[in-house]
Amino acid sequence: MIKVCILGGGNVAYHLTNILLKTKNIELVQVYNRTLNHIKYLEKFTSVTNSLNQLKEADIYIICISDNCIETISKKLNFKNKLVVHTSGGIGIDELKCQANKGVFYLLQSFSKERAVNFKEIPICYEATLKKDEELLEKLAKSISNHCYKINSNQRKSIHVAAVFVNNFVNHLYHIGNEICKKNKVPFEILWPIIKETAAKIETLTPLEAQTGPAKRNDTKTLKKHQAMLTQNQQEIYTLLTKSIFNTYGEKL
Amino acid sequence: MIKVCILGGGNVAYHLTNILLKTKNIELVQVYNRTLNHIKYLEKFTSVTNSLNQLKEADIYIICISDNCIETISKKLNFKNKLVVHTSGGIGIDELKCQANKGVFYLLQSFSKERAVNFKEIPICYEATLKKDEELLEKLAKSISNHCYKINSNQRKSIHVAAVFVNNFVNHLYHIGNEICKKNKVPFEILWPIIKETAAKIETLTPLEAQTGPAKRNDTKTLKKHQAMLTQNQQEIYTLLTKSIFNTYGEKL
Repeated sequence: MIKVCILGGGNVAYHLTNILLKTKNIELVQVYNRTLNHIKYLEKFTSVTNSLNQLKEADIYIICISDNCIETISKKLNFKNKLVVHTSGGIGIDELKCQANKGVFYLLQSFSKERAVNFKEIPICYEATLKKDEELLEKLAKSISNHCYKINSNQRKSIHVAAVFVNNFVNHLYHIGNEICKKNKVPFEILWPIIKETAAKIETLTPLEAQTGPAKRNDTKTLKKHQAMLTQNQQEIYTLLTKSIFNTYGEKL
Repeated sequence: MIKVCILGGGNVAYHLTNILLKTKNIELVQVYNRTLNHIKYLEKFTSVTNSLNQLKEADIYIICISDNCIETISKKLNFKNKLVVHTSGGIGIDELKCQANKGVFYLLQSFSKERAVNFKEIPICYEATLKKDEELLEKLAKSISNHCYKINSNQRKSIHVAAVFVNNFVNHLYHIGNEICKKNKVPFEILWPIIKETAAKIETLTPLEAQTGPAKRNDTKTLKKHQAMLTQNQQEIYTLLTKSIFNTYGEKL
């Protein structure tokens, strides 16, 4: 039985709490959050607290709070011989400033409270300074997911920035697509199949192979027509991404 | 029975030929292509030709060739009282220069010969100058897809540019994600679940609601760290999309 304590009440904490409560061989002994109200609904299932002095004994303390606060909160954990991990993609293991042993437990998914997630499909990147802790994290990871990776801090930071491109930026392009549809009284749903197909394609073709469209062909007539239909901000994005696509294939010729 | 002739041998022609050969109440009477070799495999199923003078009688002639050549080929079709349509998202109905009646039959999907497609899920945007032709195209569309839309040329052009954002540009961001992974010796597969989730989310949340990440939060510390890990081209894209996301949410505050 692995005893776990979660610190945080945001989206990651919410989903991780849910799955750990349901997972065999894991005991979620406590959830901490600065604002008790956000985790009050958990009282039926586990202990909740808003005081770091009242943290219970656990094997792993999982810090699921915003990147900016990880250092501060970790400094306040004054126990030793336990494992403290954070769940951030962009923060190194060294930014944990506690006396305890250190690790990282990064869930590579975009969480919203409104959407259920299938943990079995979520890649988990784990890392620890001690071999025994690495094994403990591997065990924890494998108990909730089928995709567990031992990843060092530099690699994890690169995954985090790659995820910004394929998640945050991609979603923003969906937003622009939606804006264009709204302006022209076209239902956004009309784009859903191509969005899904574009995402599905990369499992059988590399994105380099899957690329199509006027930028790759340098179809300047179409490029000009498109530009004329866009707002200034959309034009800037269109121009830069078109240039980047064109250069990518220009280089390969 | 609707008699159809397809002109072209590219990806769209390939998939459309395949589905029409299988569809009840449709007779694919002929496929034309400039280079006969590319459509020779169809000889077993239908008539093939590389001569526009030998086109057979049909109800609908579907031009599936590159945008730049639509005008030229349509000029060479010198029959009347038939329906000639093109399949381009970005070309107006008026760019068909034939004597015959005109229409558009736009399949809103990204086609590769290597990937099977489920036509039932593909949005089809149809348009015709004559009411009776509109009805004919509607019938043809409904015989292969469950998502048929009557869409005028201006709307269709806007869909086409929106599709560049959500398909061509999104795929290029996947490519950048892949490049970052390769450079850091991380398997690109690690990003597949977040890519799929990002695409799936927009069916329950608007992209505006689904947005997360450092740009939206204006998390300048993370933004700086990310910039430092990128090539110059990646940095430019990162900066511009970050600014666009930040402005989108700045405006809403």
